[in-house]
Amino acid sequence: MRFAKGHGTGNDFVILPDLDGDLDLTSGLAARLCDRHFGVGADGVLRVVRTAAAGEDAAGQHAEWFMDYRNADGSVAEMCGNGVRVFARYLIEHGMATGPEVAIATRAGTRAVRAEPDGQFTVDMGAATVLGEGEAQAGRQRLAGLAISVGNPHLACMVTEPVTAIDLSGPRVLRPAGLTAGANIEVIRVLRDREVEMRVHERGSGLTLSCGTGAVAAAVAAAVCAGEWPTERAMPWTVRVPGGKLAVTPSARASLLTGPAEIVASGELADEWLADLPGRADRAAAGLPAT
Amino acid sequence: MRFAKGHGTGNDFVILPDLDGDLDLTSGLAARLCDRHFGVGADGVLRVVRTAAAGEDAAGQHAEWFMDYRNADGSVAEMCGNGVRVFARYLIEHGMATGPEVAIATRAGTRAVRAEPDGQFTVDMGAATVLGEGEAQAGRQRLAGLAISVGNPHLACMVTEPVTAIDLSGPRVLRPAGLTAGANIEVIRVLRDREVEMRVHERGSGLTLSCGTGAVAAAVAAAVCAGEWPTERAMPWTVRVPGGKLAVTPSARASLLTGPAEIVASGELADEWLADLPGRADRAAAGLPAT
Repeated sequence: MRFAKGHGTGNDFVILPDLDGDLDLTSGLAARLCDRHFGVGADGVLRVVRTAAAGEDAAGQHAEWFMDYRNADGSVAEMCGNGVRVFARYLIEHGMATGPEVAIATRAGTRAVRAEPDGQFTVDMGAATVLGEGEAQAGRQRLAGLAISVGNPHLACMVTEPVTAIDLSGPRVLRPAGLTAGANIEVIRVLRDREVEMRVHERGSGLTLSCGTGAVAAAVAAAVCAGEWPTERAMPWTVRVPGGKLAVTPSARASLLTGPAEIVASGELADEWLADLPGRADRAAAGLPAT
Repeated sequence: MRFAKGHGTGNDFVILPDLDGDLDLTSGLAARLCDRHFGVGADGVLRVVRTAAAGEDAAGQHAEWFMDYRNADGSVAEMCGNGVRVFARYLIEHGMATGPEVAIATRAGTRAVRAEPDGQFTVDMGAATVLGEGEAQAGRQRLAGLAISVGNPHLACMVTEPVTAIDLSGPRVLRPAGLTAGANIEVIRVLRDREVEMRVHERGSGLTLSCGTGAVAAAVAAAVCAGEWPTERAMPWTVRVPGGKLAVTPSARASLLTGPAEIVASGELADEWLADLPGRADRAAAGLPAT
């Protein structure tokens, strides 16, 4: 079985070409591929499959390729702003799409991705909506924030100190009530004109190197602070994340996310490994983190 | 550039075939290969090079192949009990050694590895020495232990509760004074006749899934407790680690370590990735763990 490994700003993926949908990608196999000690290791799996062979998840979509995205625990996910750029690069590098514009079917609908002349990729992240004010607890600090939906829920908190100075080891949403059950929490500081730095604690994943929807939420919050939201004339923001740099043009209708997409390596999974059993349960039993 | 990824009881490695020693494996490249988000991801690198081309690290050794082992931070290391089994499997699978006995040159001298009929590998781990009694602090508990040298220093603590019940998040050696600057700390519980479970906090790495020298130290400590040390008639112990199961025949002269060695995948590193810059500094600056 062929595979590749890639990342976008440190958010990394195992890419599995399964063009005609022959592979039975169980949650067990996906989790094992993502296991960082017993498998290849990644934040998620991007299965590359023809939309026509992708079943009902892709129903009604006309893009040639479907991105079947799985989380590191093997569960199904809808979309990933960093993953879809890596997916587009993979398609173009393998002659499966001509570019520079590539339409990619996902569980969140078809997404347009564009290969930029400088090697980066831009993806249409869809609508962003400011839901209202909120508050988060981060260590001993209470942070004011904005509840923002980018398909998934965020609480984006503007701060004035360096974002690394804030304890994001276990933050929680205090309000609005609709988000207290779980949301991605961003802390954002303006560095200069239309440039922010951000750290993010992702629901279910903890601190991560990068989060595509989080970068969009950060740019929306910063635009609100700058009195530029909502706006007809979209302006790009630079969002520095721990894993690198993204550019976001926030918009209520279709925010654009631009960033790198790197392929690290490609090759073949060993047959014997594929026939073997996972070690994730052992990790949990031993009280070790699931990295 | 070709590579493979493999592991032994969850201790994982990037294998780099560099048969004639043409590669300039800088600490930067080694660290980048081991980076779990921006690179392939592993606990260490095993460079496969002809002893004759390995320079002074291999001087005077007659084994055909030298294991150039690097830690995840890119620093040079002497030996690795899990890595050397993976190294031997790689050599045999690629027809570079016939087996079942393979001599492998390392910075700690030449090690004999044997491919077992059941697919496991046994390595001669060299001398183990009991240095005397000691004590460790683990959370609120004080643990009595034995200071043991297996080339590197260990404090092996026999306990009666399940090893997962002990707080090994930041243990430290209280005595002997010679080990307080840093040692691997094991907690070991006897499960049944000649079978123990063990968790290990490795000097410089923290909690790990497995540690070859730690497994030897655990078996030595268990043998001392059982009144079987020192002994002429070596008896094998089963050592359960978070990443799987090892067998150790402890001996003051030449302890034997038997365990699995798995190859996960093999392939080629992307040229563009090789030409690119590392992301490790970004991780540190962002206050994220270096996994």
